[in-house]
Order: sequence, then structure tokens, then C-alpha cells
Amino acid sequence: MTNQMKAIVKHHRGYGAQLQMVDIPSIQDHEVLIRVKATSICGTDVHIYTWDEWSQDRIQHTPYVFGHEFAGEVVQVGKNVANVAVGDYVSAETHIVCYSCPQCLRGDYHICKHTKIIGVDTQGCFAEYVAMPAVNIWKNPKEMPYHIASIQEPMGNAVHTVLAGEVAGRSVAIIGCGPIGLMAVGIAKAAGAAQVIAFDINEQRLELAKQMGATAVVNSLKENPVEMALELTGGNGMDVICEMSGHPVAMNQGFEMVTNGGRVSILSLPTRPVDIDVTKHVVFKGITVQGITGRRMFETWMQVSSLLKSGAVNVEPLITHQLPLEEFEKGFEMMIQGTCGKVVLIP
Amino acid sequence: MTNQMKAIVKHHRGYGAQLQMVDIPSIQDHEVLIRVKATSICGTDVHIYTWDEWSQDRIQHTPYVFGHEFAGEVVQVGKNVANVAVGDYVSAETHIVCYSCPQCLRGDYHICKHTKIIGVDTQGCFAEYVAMPAVNIWKNPKEMPYHIASIQEPMGNAVHTVLAGEVAGRSVAIIGCGPIGLMAVGIAKAAGAAQVIAFDINEQRLELAKQMGATAVVNSLKENPVEMALELTGGNGMDVICEMSGHPVAMNQGFEMVTNGGRVSILSLPTRPVDIDVTKHVVFKGITVQGITGRRMFETWMQVSSLLKSGAVNVEPLITHQLPLEEFEKGFEMMIQGTCGKVVLIP
Amino acid sequence: MTNQMKAIVKHHRGYGAQLQMVDIPSIQDHEVLIRVKATSICGTDVHIYTWDEWSQDRIQHTPYVFGHEFAGEVVQVGKNVANVAVGDYVSAETHIVCYSCPQCLRGDYHICKHTKIIGVDTQGCFAEYVAMPAVNIWKNPKEMPYHIASIQEPMGNAVHTVLAGEVAGRSVAIIGCGPIGLMAVGIAKAAGAAQVIAFDINEQRLELAKQMGATAVVNSLKENPVEMALELTGGNGMDVICEMSGHPVAMNQGFEMVTNGGRVSILSLPTRPVDIDVTKHVVFKGITVQGITGRRMFETWMQVSSLLKSGAVNVEPLITHQLPLEEFEKGFEMMIQGTCGKVVLIP
Amino acid sequence: MTNQMKAIVKHHRGYGAQLQMVDIPSIQDHEVLIRVKATSICGTDVHIYTWDEWSQDRIQHTPYVFGHEFAGEVVQVGKNVANVAVGDYVSAETHIVCYSCPQCLRGDYHICKHTKIIGVDTQGCFAEYVAMPAVNIWKNPKEMPYHIASIQEPMGNAVHTVLAGEVAGRSVAIIGCGPIGLMAVGIAKAAGAAQVIAFDINEQRLELAKQMGATAVVNSLKENPVEMALELTGGNGMDVICEMSGHPVAMNQGFEMVTNGGRVSILSLPTRPVDIDVTKHVVFKGITVQGITGRRMFETWMQVSSLLKSGAVNVEPLITHQLPLEEFEKGFEMMIQGTCGKVVLIP
Repeated sequence: MTNQMKAIVKHHRGYGAQLQMVDIPSIQDHEVLIRVKATSICGTDVHIYTWDEWSQDRIQHTPYVFGHEFAGEVVQVGKNVANVAVGDYVSAETHIVCYSCPQCLRGDYHICKHTKIIGVDTQGCFAEYVAMPAVNIWKNPKEMPYHIASIQEPMGNAVHTVLAGEVAGRSVAIIGCGPIGLMAVGIAKAAGAAQVIAFDINEQRLELAKQMGATAVVNSLKENPVEMALELTGGNGMDVICEMSGHPVAMNQGFEMVTNGGRVSILSLPTRPVDIDVTKHVVFKGITVQGITGRRMFETWMQVSSLLKSGAVNVEPLITHQLPLEEFEKGFEMMIQGTCGKVVLIP
Repeated sequence: MTNQMKAIVKHHRGYGAQLQMVDIPSIQDHEVLIRVKATSICGTDVHIYTWDEWSQDRIQHTPYVFGHEFAGEVVQVGKNVANVAVGDYVSAETHIVCYSCPQCLRGDYHICKHTKIIGVDTQGCFAEYVAMPAVNIWKNPKEMPYHIASIQEPMGNAVHTVLAGEVAGRSVAIIGCGPIGLMAVGIAKAAGAAQVIAFDINEQRLELAKQMGATAVVNSLKENPVEMALELTGGNGMDVICEMSGHPVAMNQGFEMVTNGGRVSILSLPTRPVDIDVTKHVVFKGITVQGITGRRMFETWMQVSSLLKSGAVNVEPLITHQLPLEEFEKGFEMMIQGTCGKVVLIP
Repeated sequence: MTNQMKAIVKHHRGYGAQLQMVDIPSIQDHEVLIRVKATSICGTDVHIYTWDEWSQDRIQHTPYVFGHEFAGEVVQVGKNVANVAVGDYVSAETHIVCYSCPQCLRGDYHICKHTKIIGVDTQGCFAEYVAMPAVNIWKNPKEMPYHIASIQEPMGNAVHTVLAGEVAGRSVAIIGCGPIGLMAVGIAKAAGAAQVIAFDINEQRLELAKQMGATAVVNSLKENPVEMALELTGGNGMDVICEMSGHPVAMNQGFEMVTNGGRVSILSLPTRPVDIDVTKHVVFKGITVQGITGRRMFETWMQVSSLLKSGAVNVEPLITHQLPLEEFEKGFEMMIQGTCGKVVLIP
Repeated sequence: MTNQMKAIVKHHRGYGAQLQMVDIPSIQDHEVLIRVKATSICGTDVHIYTWDEWSQDRIQHTPYVFGHEFAGEVVQVGKNVANVAVGDYVSAETHIVCYSCPQCLRGDYHICKHTKIIGVDTQGCFAEYVAMPAVNIWKNPKEMPYHIASIQEPMGNAVHTVLAGEVAGRSVAIIGCGPIGLMAVGIAKAAGAAQVIAFDINEQRLELAKQMGATAVVNSLKENPVEMALELTGGNGMDVICEMSGHPVAMNQGFEMVTNGGRVSILSLPTRPVDIDVTKHVVFKGITVQGITGRRMFETWMQVSSLLKSGAVNVEPLITHQLPLEEFEKGFEMMIQGTCGKVVLIP
């Protein structure tokens, strides 16, 4: 191979990105080099692309290659690497963790205090090649299509959220039907939820939620979501809330519709503190609120892989677009306008 | 109504039973009287019918009406009864518990130390009418057919077993495919199990297991069940074993095929102590073994009801026979010979 | 006995209460009558006494007898009562629940949707006699002094909070050292917490916290509580926060000092919604927040009883005053001024 | 340093061992070399010393240095080692695991399917120096005495057993009072057990159990242990059984004395399959049986460290002997005869 590759580079501290030729990464002894076959766009990438407030604070160095969701084939392994071989089909956990803080020592790597994220803190995968520590590698079955394998990482967020408590026989609300919310709909359904009610304000997404198995969908602009939740549950309210919208109003609707003893699992990242009626909605109801970040390493990956392999969850409907890497701008524009499900780029 | 009713009476301390006219039960202030519309035959009833060793020890008084699974309509309520009304469609939890032992005080009513079981310790439901304490009543939706409503009690055993730990994305073995095992197959599948492998030695039952959603079935007489379990799980073994056979050999096959850190949930009642290699199969593997009895009151009933209402589990295939009460002998003979799934009697 | 008794009556919809002679309650068939031997003042009683905003909304009918924490001896039982006998020494769970909502059916009685609380919604125990449903009765060992037995109810709140997750070997913060916070200190210590750090702004209470076993105390007005928590835990932060202050500032300090993957258990009732940085403190940290209300019926009572009987927790230091019922005003004034621990009235 | 060191060598496939001079181990890039300051004798070492049936099967290569419990100081680190430095005071997890089987991927390293144990499968620590993979290293506080630090590994077994479920306010039986059983007594007490009843047939050990905090001790040869357990718990039986004897009779006494819904956690390794009345003791009681092996990496180590640092558990009473390495034969003889608690060798 030559020593240059195509990559989407965050080239300046402002809006947008550029397709450039850059050096293929060289790997260290504990790393592997992967030929990227599919790489999908995450909401985080959109933040970086549009260079919002969060990105301006968070991104330390430009120019750099961003992107973190991918699937590919291993083409080179470092000399200390034992568990990965050239030719393996792989994806990767995007959190690079310290293995020595109390959280890591307890096995809670996903909340490591010193987490670095690829494509945010390190060179990413919107490129023909990416280097990753071997310990982060997840091996894919060869029969899994690359575009499916690429979205295992965000599907891990959805699995981590939905399966953070009991689901079988329960009523589950998915608040916010972006790609992860849509996966959550399918996962909750696959895990035996009695009801999966999807809430959003975008009819296209609600339509996809139905395809993913929602037993009911609610357009929160057109109907009162709390009243609908109560009506659809015979007045009891929802057993489980998966908060994936990040909107304070929607989040508080979740707190209102959850039943006594229920669970509110929050994956979203509201941009400002949220005013919560702790007494009425948390204490008197005796609920449990969970903050969800990343994926359990690698329990969540095993669950994702199982749910895909068994066919229990079919993510095809929500992968609405596959584009050549060169057309990344088209992908980002659709993401910004909310006119797509998941967008996968093919380098 | 007249004061007599048809009932299947265990008339003597020996094989068989008789259809007789007996007094309709009179109820106490805390009880309700139910017109039985469907009543299903449990393995326990077969023990009592054939008058095996267990029955000879356990049954204190004959003659009496046996049977404990049913659905019907409330026709009379005692004066202290507030939560049940005449006209309600109901089934009932069959454990009558003390509410004052440490287990009951902790909410673990299903393992009350002073449990009485209807149809075993009290007058049962193989009859036109049955009396039950109001606290034992479970209300059914009016649209649920009686023959389905009747088998919620044994389905509760299956739910209690399968959902006693994590299932989504796991490999689950169902060992023993009698009616409860067959329900367990459907429940495991509905709860998102990646694999549900059913083991039995009866081809008819294995065929039903497939209909209930088993991803693979193994005839343990024709194939080595442990080898098959390893092969089907890529050498890892099963995550979850639901032991419903009661056979020491099959139970130990379960202990052999469970993977390290797995779960063995035992609902069956082996007639003799079982020789278990504790060191190899329990300690070094770090597994969890659970004894399962009855149903959580009433958490399990809620789960059963949800799974049926949502259509996640369809039990129709395993209800192979519906017979008039008068033809009970035919039903018992099929149960003894294993040529049926669930048999429901219609009084 | 005569048919009149002394009682503290909330006589009008305004500040204060009066000692009056009122009729001894008559009991229904499912109730018991108890001769009150000790009754303790709860923060809720202070709200009612001072007639604050909450009380004005919550209390439907005056005049009535308030008070809900007590110990006494059974003097009469209704004819349907089987498990309680005249002469039993008893306390009582103060939540009167419906036994038929989904929460009750699941065994989560403490979050029943139709809970009534004695002394709030019904006649209370600041009196010589009180009537209670037999199902609410908790039997005390005869050797337990009445003033200790009386505070089992609030100690149940503390146990329910502290033992809502793992404690052994963990670092535990108790934020707010009123009587329940002080009990929580002792319970956390007894349950093997590696560190129990007590936070308050009242030196007298911090002194009591030391007596109850706190390994460190922090006056949040004099020291930065978050910095102290980090310093005392080698920079990691607290594993467990028991929020018992109800102050928004203190609650947010708890969210700041909890470590990644930690637990925040909230028993307090802030009077207004609280602004919480969900993204930073809940989601990225992957913490669990629990709303705690009441006591598990009767698992928590069993734990309380065990901890007292075994001597693992000694609550004597925090019962700072025992007064005759007639001196209730003195007790309330001390509670209002925060110059006491727990105050027990002796009718 | 010279390149030779003193070591206790299992020199032949028969009884006993020899003190020999052997080469100081050379380390690989991912390993560290430790100067051993204290090393304690485990029951496993006694098996190897006496060359029993298990050892004959399990030990592949002789001669080799055995021993696996130790504390020491790091004197050299491999070039890929980042988290351990020369001068660190350390102990080590003795399981060397694969990090790639399903169990490891789920974070359950202690039940890795490819575990190697130091001193069994590799060169051990009954020597002046030992080499260990850096990922196995546990750092000790410098103020912790070496003889205490050495026994953290077996104390980890005890913690893993006792804290595998709820303890606070529960009645706990410790069956078998060898050193790990004695630690379990102290741990259960520290974790708030209402009762800790110790069972053994050796009066000296029962005496030590009292010193460790047992609320009652039972000599199972002199008293009926099941009857005693029932009597001491008011007829209810034990909530938790920690089986550490390995004797089938004692194990079955545990199954008899456990109460409905209780927990039986088995750390012991019975030499033959055990006949268990599954129906009566496991299923009808609805108990949970747990196989316990190794220690959670590194959650258990954190718990051990916390319990020692906080002073909640004092292990001094059970370390009955400290001997120079040269006097290992004396130590082994005492272990064989059961006339000691824990024996620590000082190289």
C-alpha cells in the first residue's frame, strides 16, 4: 500500500470539514491497523462538523481526522498483539481507558475517569485506515455486512440503556427517535417489552419507530405525551423511560409519565442543567434514575452481537443512506436537517 | 343455582378418580365463589390421580375435589371482600399463604413456610364451582379466552424460572419439554434470548418446542446433549439452564453444559437426592443455582398477563386438547402417556 | 378504661396544637387498639405543627390527632384479626396501602399509589390510644424499651436509604444530620462502610454524628464539602450519597462529590424543583439516583429490628429528650430550633 | 543482586518439598520482579506438599517453586509496564487470565476458562523473588505490614463469598473455620450481620472464631448443628450459608439449616460429588446456591483493602505463626495437623 490515504479532516476551528490525503497511521506495538470498510456518522460528529459550543471546548487539536464508528479488516498488528490477527473483520470500542482508576479496577471501564475517545481525543476513522489499541478491538463474524457492523457502537448505547434493568413484560417509553432511539425501540421489543411507546416530534422518525416495532407512537407536538402514556397504560404510567432526546421539556415529561417504582435511564446530554421536581417525581415515586454512558466493555458488545446474529433486532430500516466517503457533506447536511436515519460512509 | 355441582373427586386412597355430584362450596367472609369455566390438568394432578408415593404421603384427606388451575367468573363474594366483584373474570394464585412468617414479611410469599395449596390441601377446582380467598384472586381481561386464562398459573412457573435472571442476548437451554417447558421456550424467545435450545426424549414435544420458537431442538436419546450444546454455542456452553425434567441424568447434563458464570434454574422435582459434582460444575464454574417454586405474588402474574396480552407468547400450540369435564379420564390417560401438550377440561 | 383519653390535637388550621381530652378510638373488625407507651416527633409533625405551606395543602380535616411514630401494647383486637393478640408489644408501619395497585401487586407497598398515612390522613398516635389495621402492626420484642421501639419507623427510612445498594467497603456520605441522618451514619458504619462522612451546618449534630460512628464530619459552612470529600477519598469521590438535607445546594454538592458509577439515594423532600446538571453529574458519571420513600413492608422493619437487637446500631445517643406528652410544646420548639436529636413523648 | 535465590521447591512427584537455591526469575516486557517479604501457606499448598490425588493430577511439571500468596516490593519492571514502578509495595492476583474468552469479555475474569494459577501452573512465590504480569499486581499502602498484605489473596476468597449477597441484618452461618472461614466470620460481622454462627469440629478454631466476632459457635461433633441453627434463629433457619468445609455431611447440614429464600455460597471443594436433596432443600425452599471461585478482579481486592484499612476486620488473631522461610516444614506440619491459623513465611 502507499503511505497516503483519503480522510475527512476537521481542518480548522470552524464549520465544516475537508476530504484530504493524509499519512496512513503507523501503529505502536500494542496497536492494530484496520482498513475501514464502513464508517457511520454519529451525532457527536455533527457537533464537531458544525463546530458548536461543545466542540469548541472539547476538541483540543486541529487539523485531525474525526469519526469513531466503523467496521473493517485488520491489515497489520503490533508485535505485542496476541488476540487479533491480520484478516480479522473488526469494529472497535471507542473508549480508550486507563485500566487503573477505581472504576476500571471494578470492571466499569465505560466510566473510566481518564477516558479518551477516538475521533475526539485521537485520530478517528473517517478515513481509509485507522489505528486502534488491540484491547479495543471487537471481532465481527465474517457474514455480518460492514454497514451493519459499523453501527454496533451506537447500538451498544441503545442496548446499554434499554437493558440496564428489566424489560420483559414491562411498558417502555423511548423519548427521542434519532438513530439510537430507533434502535432502542427494536431492542425493547426484542427483549419482550409489553409496550414500546415512541415519542418524537418528527413524523418521519415516528414512522421508522413503527417499522422498528413500536406498539404506539406519539407526536409530542400534536398530542400530550404524558396523557397518552397514561391512557395507553391504563392509568399506571410507564415502567421504563429511555431518555434520548436531551430536551428538558421531554425529559420532564418522562419524569411525569414514569410510574411509581419505575426506571428512567438517561443516555442524552442536555446542554444545560435541568429543573427536576425531585420530591414529586423522584422521591415520592421511589424511582431509579440511571445515567448511561458508553457501553459495558465488552458485555454490551456481546449483547449487541447476539441480538444482531439471532435476528431479534433488524437495524436495516434505520440505515437510510450509504454514501461514498467523498459525499460526506451530503450525509452531514441530512443529519443536520433530520431527514435521515443512520448514514454510513464507504471509504 | 342448585346446591349441588359436578366435580372430579379423588374418592379413595388409590388409582383414579370419580365424577360425582357434591355440595357447592359455601364461602367465608374473606372468600369468593367462582363458576369454573376452564380447568387444566397439571403434573401434580397426575401424581394424585395415579396415587404415587408422593401423593400417598402428601394428601391428608380423601375424598376431596382436586385440581388447582382454572379460570372462571365470580358469582358470589364474602362480606369482607372489597377488591373482587360478582361478574369479574378471574383465575387464582394457588398458594394460600400465612402473611406472617419471615418469608411473607419480606414479600416472598411464594416460599411461605406455611403454604397450603388448593386442590392439594384444600378443595380444588375440577368442578363447576370453587371457593377461594379473595386475596388469591387474579383478575383476567374479559377478552382473554378461558382456556388461555386457565393456564396462567403453570405459565407463571415458566415465567418465574426463565425470568429469574438475564435472558436478552443469552443462550438458554430448556431441559424437559412438558407443557411448562414448552411455555418456557416461548418466554425465553420473547425475552430476547439469542438461542433457545430445547432438550427432551419425546419427538412430539420437540416438534411443539419448535413451534414455540426453539432455535434448535435436541433429542437426548439420539444425540449427546452436552456435545450439542457446546457445538451450538461455539464451544462456550449455555448461559442459562431451565431444568424442567426432574431426571438426575438430564439435570447433570445441564450442570455440564452450563458455561462459567451461568445460571441453572431448577423448577423440577427429582424424586430422589441427586449426585452433583459441586467442585467441578458449581464452584470452579462460579455458577448460580436457583430453586424455583410457585410464582411471585403477584409480580409473576403481571408478567404472564403482559406476555399474553402483548402477543409476545402464543400458548395456543401447546394446548392440544379441550375436553368436557366428564371426559377427565381420557385427559389423564394422555397425560400419563405423554401424548399431549396441555389438556383443558370444560365443566 | 374510660372512653376518653389525652391527645395532642391539631385544633385549627394555623400554628400550634392543643392537648385535649378526646374519645378513645373504636376499632373495626380488621383493626387493633393500642395503648401508646412512647411516641416520637417526626419532621412531618413539625410541618403540621407550624402549619407550613405543605401542611395547608396536605391536611384535609381539622381538628384531628396527629403523630405517627409510636410503640405500645395491644389492648383490643377486632374479630377478623388473627396475627396480633392482646398483650403484644407493637409498633406500626404508618403507610396504609391499597394492596391492589400495580405497585402493591408487585410487593412494592411502600410506593402504593393510594397510600394513606396515619396522623396525616387518619387519626394519629400523639395520644394515649391509637387504632391501627392489624396488617400494619409490627411486633416488638418485650425487652426492647418503648422509646427505642418508637423510633423504628424513622430508622426504617434510614435503613431503606443506606441499604438500597452496596455499603460494605464503600465510602458513604450522609448529607444532613437530623435524626434520620444520624441513624444513617450508624447504619452505614454497622454495614461495613469503609468511610462514613457526615455533612451538616450544625455543630451539635456533627458532634452526634461522631458519636454515631462517622469517620469524619464536615461543617459545610466552614469547609468546602466537595473538596473535603475528594481529599478524604484520595481524589476519587464518594461511592454512596445519602441525601437527607433537602437543600438544593447540599443536594448538588452530593452530585458533585459522588464518584463515577456511584449511587445517590435521596430521602429528603426539597420544597422546589432542583436544577441538576444531568449531563455532567448523572450521565457522564454513569451514576444511579434513587428516590427513597417509606420503608419496604416489612423487609425494612426486619432489618431495623435485627440491627437494634444485635446491638450493631445504638440509637440512644440521638434520642436526646424524653418528655411527658403534656410537654409537647417544649419538644416542638426544640425541633424547630434544631437544638435536639430525637424527642420522644410519653403519654 | 546475585542471580540466585532461596526457594521452596516441589522437587519430586511425592511427599514434601526442599529448600534450594534456584535462579532468580527473569522477567518479560509485561512483567515485574518482586522481592518477596512475606508469603503465606494456603490449603492448596498443603495439597501439593502432601502430594495428594488432586496434586498428582493437577501439577504438570516438577521440579518447580510453589506458593502463591505474598507481599513484597517491586525491584524491576518490564519495558511495557506503565502502572507499576520500582519501589511499589505489592501483592498480586494469582489468576493469570486470557482476557478474551466470553467470561473475560464480560468482566468475569475470576471464572476465565483459561485461567493459570501462579505456584500451580507457573513458578510461585515461596522464594526470595517472584515474577508476575504487571496486570496482576495489586498495590499495597506502605503502612500495611507485609504479613497482613500477604493474606489479602485468601481474604479475597472470604470477601467474595460473604459479600456475594446481602449480609446486613441477616443471620450468617460459616461452616468450616479454617483461616478463610475465620476471615469470613470477621467480614460477616463487619458487614452488619445480625448473627454470625461458626461451625467446626476443632475447638481451637472455634475459639478463634469467637475472637473474630462470631455471635455463637457450634462444635458439630458435640451438638446437632441444624438444631442449633434453628434454635438460635427462633426456628427460622439461617439466611446465609458460607460453606467452607468441603465435607459432604457439613455441606448438607448447610442445606438443611438454610431458610426459605436463603443463600448458600460454596467456596469449598468437596473431593467427590455430593448427594443433594434438590427437591426438598433447593426447589421447595427457593434458595440460591452460588459457586465461588477466586476473587473479582479487582473489585474484591478493593473491598479487602477497604475492610483492612478501615479496621473493620482485624485479621491479626488468625495469623498464628510467622516463620523464616527455612522453617517451612514446621509450618506445613502445623497446617496438616490443624494446630494453627494462618502461617506466614518470611523469606
